Amino acid sequence: MSNKNNVSRRNLLKQGALLVTSGLVMKGRNGFSQTSLPPVDTTKILGALPSELGSRSPFASIKREVGRFDPDGYSMTPLEKLSGIITPSDLHFERHHAGIPLIDPDRYELLIHGLVDRPLKFSLADLKRFPSVSRVCFIECSGNGYKTSFDRSDIPEDITPGQLDGLFSTSEWTGVRLSTLFREVGVRKKASWFLAEGQDAAVMTRSIPMSKAWDDALVVYAQNGESLRPEQGYPVRLLLPGWEGNSSVKWLRRFEISDAPFMTREETAKYADPRSTGKIEMFTFTMGPKSLITSPSYPIILPGKGWWEINGLAWSGNGKIDKVDISVDGGKTWQPATLHEPILSKCTTRFTFPWHWNGKSTLFMSRATDENGLQQPSVAEAREGRGPATYYHNNVIRPWKIDTDGQITFGLNVMV
Amino acid sequence: MSNKNNVSRRNLLKQGALLVTSGLVMKGRNGFSQTSLPPVDTTKILGALPSELGSRSPFASIKREVGRFDPDGYSMTPLEKLSGIITPSDLHFERHHAGIPLIDPDRYELLIHGLVDRPLKFSLADLKRFPSVSRVCFIECSGNGYKTSFDRSDIPEDITPGQLDGLFSTSEWTGVRLSTLFREVGVRKKASWFLAEGQDAAVMTRSIPMSKAWDDALVVYAQNGESLRPEQGYPVRLLLPGWEGNSSVKWLRRFEISDAPFMTREETAKYADPRSTGKIEMFTFTMGPKSLITSPSYPIILPGKGWWEINGLAWSGNGKIDKVDISVDGGKTWQPATLHEPILSKCTTRFTFPWHWNGKSTLFMSRATDENGLQQPSVAEAREGRGPATYYHNNVIRPWKIDTDGQITFGLNVMV
Repeated sequence: MSNKNNVSRRNLLKQGALLVTSGLVMKGRNGFSQTSLPPVDTTKILGALPSELGSRSPFASIKREVGRFDPDGYSMTPLEKLSGIITPSDLHFERHHAGIPLIDPDRYELLIHGLVDRPLKFSLADLKRFPSVSRVCFIECSGNGYKTSFDRSDIPEDITPGQLDGLFSTSEWTGVRLSTLFREVGVRKKASWFLAEGQDAAVMTRSIPMSKAWDDALVVYAQNGESLRPEQGYPVRLLLPGWEGNSSVKWLRRFEISDAPFMTREETAKYADPRSTGKIEMFTFTMGPKSLITSPSYPIILPGKGWWEINGLAWSGNGKIDKVDISVDGGKTWQPATLHEPILSKCTTRFTFPWHWNGKSTLFMSRATDENGLQQPSVAEAREGRGPATYYHNNVIRPWKIDTDGQITFGLNVMV
Repeated sequence: MSNKNNVSRRNLLKQGALLVTSGLVMKGRNGFSQTSLPPVDTTKILGALPSELGSRSPFASIKREVGRFDPDGYSMTPLEKLSGIITPSDLHFERHHAGIPLIDPDRYELLIHGLVDRPLKFSLADLKRFPSVSRVCFIECSGNGYKTSFDRSDIPEDITPGQLDGLFSTSEWTGVRLSTLFREVGVRKKASWFLAEGQDAAVMTRSIPMSKAWDDALVVYAQNGESLRPEQGYPVRLLLPGWEGNSSVKWLRRFEISDAPFMTREETAKYADPRSTGKIEMFTFTMGPKSLITSPSYPIILPGKGWWEINGLAWSGNGKIDKVDISVDGGKTWQPATLHEPILSKCTTRFTFPWHWNGKSTLFMSRATDENGLQQPSVAEAREGRGPATYYHNNVIRPWKIDTDGQITFGLNVMV
């Protein structure tokens, strides 16, 4: 930073007066210029007037990275560009199997039937009349981090945090407890599973154990204060805190209560984990403890040695984050990072660590531990515990590599 | 809600098949139709594809209410349409005295001078290199609620929560502690006040006691994860948690350290409180404990007696909310509301209360108490403590009136 020893108020005012511009600025959306340079002395020109809806500064554009499948796809949250824990709703990651349906809220109905005393349909107004509850929590796609599955031979080095793990976002969600609705219909005692069904063109279906309904499942209609975004399930989605994203079924239209899982195509053809024994483990819902350093990271080049803040995100589907440890020597020694408030269960926790980079090439990384003592595994630990083919639930430690020229790249290849 | 006793999967599928539409939908921004009806059976049509930036459902438009002065004005957060505590950034209230300046972040500088060892200018990159901290807290305009100052003879009955108290919003803010910057420049021991100056065309200035800098003041560059919005001070604002909004100076360009307040025009002509003694109290920064029922509220008409959820917001500039009490009999008796997590200091807390409306006309209201034991005053208590002319810091209890036909109106007139 620049040190000007002779700065005075007089000099400041003089400088300002010299920089007055003509004040002619082209006005775009929300009154901001999209094309011309801003006035140098903004104190001499009336600024943009209030508006019904704010928009970003033209200097602060930000977007999700879109990936296409045929015919659908996904978009990823640019984690390295965000601070704190809340993801703005228009930057929340999206994943759907047959596009985003357009649903008229006035025609919306949620059906609950099966092993119940009173099959019922609920309108959106019906759902909003029940006692409401809000919760800040993360949603992570089960396939998040798939580009770096450690059985791959092509783990990229030139990958940003958002490209790596951006199928992960955090919002404040508001809705009604699923247990409230299940009591309303009178779920029978022998019920042990229920089907959650979406009304998208993939008719997304998952079988969920009843215990999750009695624990903390929500049926939500709001996200970060306002109505759900279309790609997040407008007008209503299921929310299963801490569980893989696909189980929080969007555009929710039906629950069927049963005494066995439904064995939908999502469960028989996908969302199960092949193990080294040759067997398949099904219904592996919970997202394990995980952390990711978002800064510094690829493609940053540190301009020199000295103090740099390591900054990142940690989360666990099992509960609260208990600690995050940092290694700046390739995993040989570890030191605790500072965890920032609020630290909430099944939610994202921001951590920071003051790092004095000595200018040498090294690997630096973070390791999360949750309140149940579960720890983010190394590649070797994950291989031993799960076998080589961990495609879903990839929560292995994510190292970054820094070279002597300050260039940072993704460093998992070095650990594999 | 409708009770369909004979709902079966077969009937549901049959109904769905009958409602298949042609699938021809006009595509607008983000692939959503702006004009035509949505398809009735959304499972038969590929939906909208992923996008770089999400947008709201065409069925879920929402906006701030804009008020104009000459030449500037304000916009208010529609509190009655929001859930939880986070305000989406494009719905955060705005108030400025000479419009929103357009600032190029690459030219941005923050000067700190006066009673310091080393006057310094900080670029935006300089500020971001310091240890970062995030905090969820509210900002409330000192004049919030001014339309219902209780010395007015024209307190409206047809006013929504947003029109009443919408100069109030809550965000997660990220930046650097002001104390960090003040240590960097070497603030001298005899310093007791500092000036915060904005680079808008009003050159907004406030004098702030040094104790706030050492306590919890922040210099912030991010809001709800991303860069500040232009109307919130892009690229950098001061944030004084719990204090009246105008003191959190936006478009921040300068701090001058001194041993006395600067007596700016904001302090001598505005932002001071006339008392019944005939004297003026200056530097009344802290926003007192306050609560507001956001639902049910004007213009809602309850369709009938029975259980309705009372839902609202409580906050205090002194610390955490300790309790919120509800009266549904005009203030004669009070019962505790449920406070929802997270309950954070100098932040908004959501409360709910199950109300069984008996169909009779009554006044219902909420009363907040903070962890220091400070309680939201009645009109009579505020008159006694402050005199009749409370224009700023209007935190008196806000009653709603319900008539036998279910119509709800603002009920402060009844209490005055």
